[in-house]
Amino acid sequence: MLGKFLLPEVRELIASGDEETLREILNRWSPADVVELFDALSDEEDLAGIKMMSGPQRARVFEYLDRRSQKHLLGALPPESVRSLLNEIADDDRTAILEELSESEKERLLTLLSDEQRAIAESFLKFPENSVGRLMTPHVVAVLPQWTVQHVLDHIRQHGQDSETLNVVYIVDHNHRLIDDLRIRKILLAKPTQYLSEILDNNFVALKANDPKRDAVEVFRQYDRTALPVVDDDGKLLGVVTIDDVIDIAEESATADMQKLGGLEALNEPYDSTPLLTMIRKRAVWLVVLFLGEMLTATAMGFFEVEIEKAVVLALFVPLIISSGGNSGSQAATLIVRALALGEVRLRDWFMVFRREVLSGLALGCTLGLIGFSRIALWTTFTDIYGPHWFLVGLTVGISLVGIVLWGTLAGAMLPFLLKRLGLDPATSSAPLVATLVDVTGLIIYFSVAILILRGTLL
Amino acid sequence: MLGKFLLPEVRELIASGDEETLREILNRWSPADVVELFDALSDEEDLAGIKMMSGPQRARVFEYLDRRSQKHLLGALPPESVRSLLNEIADDDRTAILEELSESEKERLLTLLSDEQRAIAESFLKFPENSVGRLMTPHVVAVLPQWTVQHVLDHIRQHGQDSETLNVVYIVDHNHRLIDDLRIRKILLAKPTQYLSEILDNNFVALKANDPKRDAVEVFRQYDRTALPVVDDDGKLLGVVTIDDVIDIAEESATADMQKLGGLEALNEPYDSTPLLTMIRKRAVWLVVLFLGEMLTATAMGFFEVEIEKAVVLALFVPLIISSGGNSGSQAATLIVRALALGEVRLRDWFMVFRREVLSGLALGCTLGLIGFSRIALWTTFTDIYGPHWFLVGLTVGISLVGIVLWGTLAGAMLPFLLKRLGLDPATSSAPLVATLVDVTGLIIYFSVAILILRGTLL
Repeated sequence: MLGKFLLPEVRELIASGDEETLREILNRWSPADVVELFDALSDEEDLAGIKMMSGPQRARVFEYLDRRSQKHLLGALPPESVRSLLNEIADDDRTAILEELSESEKERLLTLLSDEQRAIAESFLKFPENSVGRLMTPHVVAVLPQWTVQHVLDHIRQHGQDSETLNVVYIVDHNHRLIDDLRIRKILLAKPTQYLSEILDNNFVALKANDPKRDAVEVFRQYDRTALPVVDDDGKLLGVVTIDDVIDIAEESATADMQKLGGLEALNEPYDSTPLLTMIRKRAVWLVVLFLGEMLTATAMGFFEVEIEKAVVLALFVPLIISSGGNSGSQAATLIVRALALGEVRLRDWFMVFRREVLSGLALGCTLGLIGFSRIALWTTFTDIYGPHWFLVGLTVGISLVGIVLWGTLAGAMLPFLLKRLGLDPATSSAPLVATLVDVTGLIIYFSVAILILRGTLL
Repeated sequence: MLGKFLLPEVRELIASGDEETLREILNRWSPADVVELFDALSDEEDLAGIKMMSGPQRARVFEYLDRRSQKHLLGALPPESVRSLLNEIADDDRTAILEELSESEKERLLTLLSDEQRAIAESFLKFPENSVGRLMTPHVVAVLPQWTVQHVLDHIRQHGQDSETLNVVYIVDHNHRLIDDLRIRKILLAKPTQYLSEILDNNFVALKANDPKRDAVEVFRQYDRTALPVVDDDGKLLGVVTIDDVIDIAEESATADMQKLGGLEALNEPYDSTPLLTMIRKRAVWLVVLFLGEMLTATAMGFFEVEIEKAVVLALFVPLIISSGGNSGSQAATLIVRALALGEVRLRDWFMVFRREVLSGLALGCTLGLIGFSRIALWTTFTDIYGPHWFLVGLTVGISLVGIVLWGTLAGAMLPFLLKRLGLDPATSSAPLVATLVDVTGLIIYFSVAILILRGTLL
């Protein structure tokens, strides 16, 4: 909050060359505020600012920066500063940066680390990409059940400095196998002379290092924790994952789902740092698939070429009709994909959804059908573009709309269930995919209704 | 995790009437596990289970239940149990439930509360809907700066029981004005004899009770905290908001954005608990707006009626052409809306985006144009549906596709910026809205290209 308000004052300090005050500000402000200030300054000014900071403050600020700025600084700072920076930042942040660098750049940075830090960094990079192991830090407070509360408090005071979180304390046996996790609240509320074995309940939830990141979000959401322990296959405590990392993953998942709903492959990187060619490729794949599917509309239209030749007026409403089916399908698909993602609706609820969507589709279809008919009736009062059979044309458009909106709604609502049932990602049922599916059938519905109603008059 | 695995065993216990073991399971499991079990059981079984629990366990389990189950239990439990339940659950959870009930039901429940709890509940309901005030709990550990660390630890041990979180301690002056917040880590790492005034840095971030909930997400994301203090306009400490509530709000925001992108008003309630009529209304509004906009396609098509009469073959490609514009626009809009929401791209970056999207649009348009032309050339080898001028028709389709995909991409990418610039919600630029905008112009582009290329032959 501070960063934005004081920008003019800071610019003035830079202009007047008052380095001492600047240095004090940069070292005293909270890292988040400094980053907000950095966002408003140029890359060169950021670099100068970073150089003015003390080691720990520099590391905290660095952790808050976006990936692009981090990479820029790692490239621009002298090797000595990069070394101390990398040694100082949190393990999970370091892993996250290293995994995104090129092999050669990664090698260069790894050689700058101290032996101990390099061993840690390399052990993390051994876990699969997108696994919980890449998110964790090994620095936790692990204590034995036969300790007293006072012993734990003394231990934390002496050895807790490096721990990523002190909100939870982990109880292990002599083989470092996890026995329980205790929120700090339980320790703080207990008598100092109590033994941990008296307050622990062996009731804990742990993540496996090889589990996918996305699972961690589910567990955090379900268990309202601020930190979760990570264990290996033998149940040995490896480290901890904190909730701040998990919020980022939840956002990433939502972004990926949105992008799939928008009809493209998930980028998995911020828009502005995705290479142009990668982005075009990820968009082209789906665009081409949809285009190939949509070609069936040309085939369907060709099938009704005779009817169009006889009554060109029918062609005029084709875009209106098929887009209404696509729009209603897009609404239904979005609702169901998100409801499935949040667990509001489960696979076995498909029939409940089906019934609701039949009613919604009918109501929405009748609304649009009525408006469509009225528009044709209204236009006829001052133009004769729809000819003498305007009433029948209006009827054709109105009735087709009811059918097409109902069909679009049901297709959009049921496709996510079908995909999930088949073990695929429901978010693949994007607005464009549903629209494409509905377009072809929409044309068939429209021209069939037209043939039924207009036979003997226009057709 | 436990809940799902042990379901058969629990069913057996219910069948055999072994109440004692059931009671023990229900009271010993973690609340999240019990809720998972409840999800798989019927409402009646849940009710029977809740009745077997001790007061505190019942309250914790209740807090984890979804709103629908909570309301059901409040209606089904005897008044005595409702009273003790409401008195026991966390303040923010109670506020959240009360604010969703009807006036009469709310009144009934408020009279069941103890005087103290009713006063708290009513004071929360005075804050505006969707404000930070509705999220908070007043139970925090507030201490004075002249206390020592040991004094704080003793104070927590005696009075911390009711506090929502012990991960942060709040320092106030004699007027209860907030001076600083200290993570418990700082207290635990300090010497017991140190005074708080020596370790505090007056550097804190607080939420205002009247601020909108959504702002809280931003602040949490920016400052990596697990809890934030809430103050009134005078800076007096009112309570605390914890991060578990904020994850829910972040999910709600993402849901609302997705639903807007899908072309409907945000539901603000889970799919299965939104009344059918409300849902139809929220979908109908946009569907009708889009339909009215899409009517312009009929006007545009009418404008080119003569051309269609002369060359019906042109009409065959109308759905294919306009849907390609819509799909590419939907991709671009989704990317930019999400990038703006996450702050990856800011208003002032519009030109960077514009340049990238010009290149993307051209590349994607050329890809589709080439495929479109090839399809017409290929079909011509075994049918004569496209007539003797198939080459010119193919050229018309191909060139139109380049123009329309480029235009769709740019419209989809720039509309969110325009909306944001006007102070509107960028997420309003839904896939269907962009498609509708692009459809009309797409038709004009297509028929203009056709007139240029086919004049003298087909037209």
